[in-house]
Amino acid sequence: MKVEVMKGGLCAVKGVRAYGIKEGNKGLALIEGEGKASGMYTTNKIKAAPVRFTKKQLEKGRISAIIANSGCANSFTGEQGMRNAEKMAELASSFLGVDKEEVAVLSTGPIGAQLDMGLIEGQLGEVVKGLTSGEEGSTAAAKAIMTTDTFHKETAISIDTGNDEPVVIGGIVKGSGMIAPHMTTATMLAFIYTDASLDDEVLSGSLKDAVENSFNMTVVDGDMSTNDTVLLVATGKSGKISEADFKAGLTFVCQELAKLIARDGEGATKFIEVRVKGAPSIADAREVARSIVRSPLVKSAIFGERPDLVCGRIIAAIGSSAITGDGGDFSGISIRLKGEKEVLAVKNGEFMDLSGSERTLMKGKEIFIDVDMGTGEEAEATAWGCDLTYDYVRINASMH
Amino acid sequence: MKVEVMKGGLCAVKGVRAYGIKEGNKGLALIEGEGKASGMYTTNKIKAAPVRFTKKQLEKGRISAIIANSGCANSFTGEQGMRNAEKMAELASSFLGVDKEEVAVLSTGPIGAQLDMGLIEGQLGEVVKGLTSGEEGSTAAAKAIMTTDTFHKETAISIDTGNDEPVVIGGIVKGSGMIAPHMTTATMLAFIYTDASLDDEVLSGSLKDAVENSFNMTVVDGDMSTNDTVLLVATGKSGKISEADFKAGLTFVCQELAKLIARDGEGATKFIEVRVKGAPSIADAREVARSIVRSPLVKSAIFGERPDLVCGRIIAAIGSSAITGDGGDFSGISIRLKGEKEVLAVKNGEFMDLSGSERTLMKGKEIFIDVDMGTGEEAEATAWGCDLTYDYVRINASMH
Repeated sequence: MKVEVMKGGLCAVKGVRAYGIKEGNKGLALIEGEGKASGMYTTNKIKAAPVRFTKKQLEKGRISAIIANSGCANSFTGEQGMRNAEKMAELASSFLGVDKEEVAVLSTGPIGAQLDMGLIEGQLGEVVKGLTSGEEGSTAAAKAIMTTDTFHKETAISIDTGNDEPVVIGGIVKGSGMIAPHMTTATMLAFIYTDASLDDEVLSGSLKDAVENSFNMTVVDGDMSTNDTVLLVATGKSGKISEADFKAGLTFVCQELAKLIARDGEGATKFIEVRVKGAPSIADAREVARSIVRSPLVKSAIFGERPDLVCGRIIAAIGSSAITGDGGDFSGISIRLKGEKEVLAVKNGEFMDLSGSERTLMKGKEIFIDVDMGTGEEAEATAWGCDLTYDYVRINASMH
Repeated sequence: MKVEVMKGGLCAVKGVRAYGIKEGNKGLALIEGEGKASGMYTTNKIKAAPVRFTKKQLEKGRISAIIANSGCANSFTGEQGMRNAEKMAELASSFLGVDKEEVAVLSTGPIGAQLDMGLIEGQLGEVVKGLTSGEEGSTAAAKAIMTTDTFHKETAISIDTGNDEPVVIGGIVKGSGMIAPHMTTATMLAFIYTDASLDDEVLSGSLKDAVENSFNMTVVDGDMSTNDTVLLVATGKSGKISEADFKAGLTFVCQELAKLIARDGEGATKFIEVRVKGAPSIADAREVARSIVRSPLVKSAIFGERPDLVCGRIIAAIGSSAITGDGGDFSGISIRLKGEKEVLAVKNGEFMDLSGSERTLMKGKEIFIDVDMGTGEEAEATAWGCDLTYDYVRINASMH
């Protein structure tokens, strides 16, 4: 399988037009592109009105457009909130001339306030005029849904299937704070399109797999939103692709988008990748990786560039994870740390002397933690996150 | 039942002597007092050597002494760690002339390093000389086990049982960072003595109950240690007490100690008490209360004194808690906030206008959040925690 990263985000996909605008903290994005659709939604027990609405819209497995606003989550807004979500679908439907039952609606922003429907209607008129299949359309949509994001996030890949036409997968995502595992990565909206022609089961099965290995492995602060949604739409405008190749491609795209979220964690100065291997099961490997990248003590030790502190905290995080078994044998654990330099910090359960290499291990913008659970088993997983900084506190103590 | 808070901590209890010393960050505490004993231990799957050792020691349900050091957790230290834990028991046994199988051993501090046994033996000689039933003994022991604690923590109560003699319960605790629910409140050591005469089942049953309603409801950062232990010892030197009265008294003592931990949360500027009522079950009420007090977003909004931000984040935390059911009816939730002023911020699912009262609601050293789940059911729970501040990050980025 030959994969090439390309420009254009959503609009690299055949059959997709997009645009968006932002005024102050209120943005509106519109994506037009008809096809089979599958969604995954927050596991937060309080689901925002647009999430409940969109879940229902997608029951038929087909959408023609996505309308998404930033600046108001339309969450915990009662019956009026649900009417407003429906109204957003109606507006998009009449502006675009598509079936209103095929419009997905998403919102992101503070919880508890009602939408300003006049503003949304006005913005929609502007956005419809800007709709384009050029790459600027994807970028505008990605920017329109930003909240505390410091940069917009989009990616696309082209997969050489051996047929005449390559298959393209492109997506945009927003999210920076309130990011927790379990889909549930919070205030996260991801819209992914592909021009591949896919069966329904392949579409939904690939999405579930890809999300489990990407967004669900990204942790900024462990909080989760009422609004998280990932939508995947297949326009079918290019050729066929094998299930395995599509899954691999979609996972790649989702991981790229997930890593962009981790890099843009609120207040983050360092990106953290935790790779766990030698675990007895994939579930255990994932749980351990997430537990490490979620620990405030690990995150703040990395901010402080203190490899001497980080290993003990990694050990505590491993033990506190919801792995199977209790009092098991953890004596074979090895931990490799990599910043500007790389070192085996814990070797088969023994802490190595880090004096000398001290700070260089945690210097730099990217920190890698490789944990070998030493069980003799082969299961692996990777999680992504960021350090915990003064700025995380500053942003969340005063923003919005 | 008449309860009076009194001085003296551990040493208010008949039959208890204590002392401790600290040199730099290395401290040693010794408590002498024979009686029936029950323990609760970290649920972290990686348990420090002294935790595993002490769990075994307590199988017979009886101890004569507790020896505890700070400055080294003796965790993840392999076979040598276990030998050193045993050696600590032997040392205490020979210095005090008690059965070495009746000595509990605890440690707290950084993970991964071996104990300095020479230092511990030398300190033990000093500590034995200082052993006293005077209140200064309890204070010295409480100070000796401090790590990042900024003040020592002890309390005692006298319960008028209607008999000639009151029953006394006294305890010390250490803990400030790495505090998570599930006993598992991390790097937390609590030693509680009573002079009541109790059956074995009452002893262990009361401890379980009290811990569930106190230490397990305290959250500083959600991390948990490999060393947490709560020990309860009954010397039997005073009279009988009803099971209900003892449970109530022990719960009071454990809650006082748990609240001291929350007040001393690393970098904390505000103490937070979250009371949840109107939940369908105690388990749900506890889960919701802990979920709110654990949320970094709620904690940082309180640090920033932003009641306007805090309610939406409380809603998200409620929904993300592991409460039963999904998509249930949360439309009847009410939230009352109290700092210097008090206001009903969410009323039956509707966000109130907080303009004007803004910052005063979150001013002050103590913030109360009362949540009524509005389900018509009656279950309640209370959790304690603290705000998330710049200093939490500073302490954990560079300390030890």
